[in-house]
Amino acid sequence: MNSDESDDPIHVRHKPPTVLERPRELVLACPPFRSAVNLSRIVRAAGCCGIGRIIVEGPIRLDKKIARDGAEQVELESRRSLDPVLIRMKQEGYRLVGLEQASRSVSTFDYRFERRTCLVIGHERDGIPDERLKLMDDVIEIPVYGMPFSHNVATATTMALYEYCRQLPLG
Amino acid sequence: MNSDESDDPIHVRHKPPTVLERPRELVLACPPFRSAVNLSRIVRAAGCCGIGRIIVEGPIRLDKKIARDGAEQVELESRRSLDPVLIRMKQEGYRLVGLEQASRSVSTFDYRFERRTCLVIGHERDGIPDERLKLMDDVIEIPVYGMPFSHNVATATTMALYEYCRQLPLG
Repeated sequence: MNSDESDDPIHVRHKPPTVLERPRELVLACPPFRSAVNLSRIVRAAGCCGIGRIIVEGPIRLDKKIARDGAEQVELESRRSLDPVLIRMKQEGYRLVGLEQASRSVSTFDYRFERRTCLVIGHERDGIPDERLKLMDDVIEIPVYGMPFSHNVATATTMALYEYCRQLPLG
Repeated sequence: MNSDESDDPIHVRHKPPTVLERPRELVLACPPFRSAVNLSRIVRAAGCCGIGRIIVEGPIRLDKKIARDGAEQVELESRRSLDPVLIRMKQEGYRLVGLEQASRSVSTFDYRFERRTCLVIGHERDGIPDERLKLMDDVIEIPVYGMPFSHNVATATTMALYEYCRQLPLG
């Protein structure tokens, strides 16, 4: 047997991606993060997940070395305020889903995503303001088990993206 | 109705964590990452997931501002080489699971974790060396759909942690 026929797994650097059957209908809505690193990490992960659109409140500050080609894959829109956009998206049939540790949030382990969803992310320090939470159809959270008892915002966002893709693996 | 009785969700800053029914039997094994940021992000997420132990090849370099209390929650062990540790863990009944885009890797969407698992992480640039991949019982990967076609290593690791916790929500 030559080495090509071995059963041993080998590292594949540029494996072809999974092909979606239809474009993803998931949109991310982000607050003006304190850290450009967090937005950049989200953009890279969103690109990998096949997400097409991220709406950012305030100016868009990206570290291209972190966001990589995600910045090409994803359309980034800067808006002065998220709330009017969210209200319009609701009228367009998007389910507004806040990602936040809130009084009545549902575990992502139990939540079923609708395809047409706008996932609303909280600020690193302040979370989602209560006035914005009132606009949400649902609020979801990543379960935590130990210290420091809350995930970094980019980590939580990418876990929620993972869960959405897991439920809708082909779009 | 006073505001306490409102149905509107409100942000809860320090929500109590989920309590595990038994300690997690998931151990992480990490290579000598190029970036202390990646290890630190993994440590914070591992702490939040209730993971008790991370084995690190080479010296442990943490950014405490990123790892937060995860560095207290998780026992970090530095080893000169991972391979002898992995062989011993296999003898102790751990399933060795590589996280890598490899020739025969299985999607995390389809993979069923065994409780007693050592999740082996690849290096940012070089992945898991083929010699180490041969030790693995399974190789898993996070599906990707778009550019840049591979997740940052800390993002992929935290997604895999999420998936393990989803399958074994109480330990």
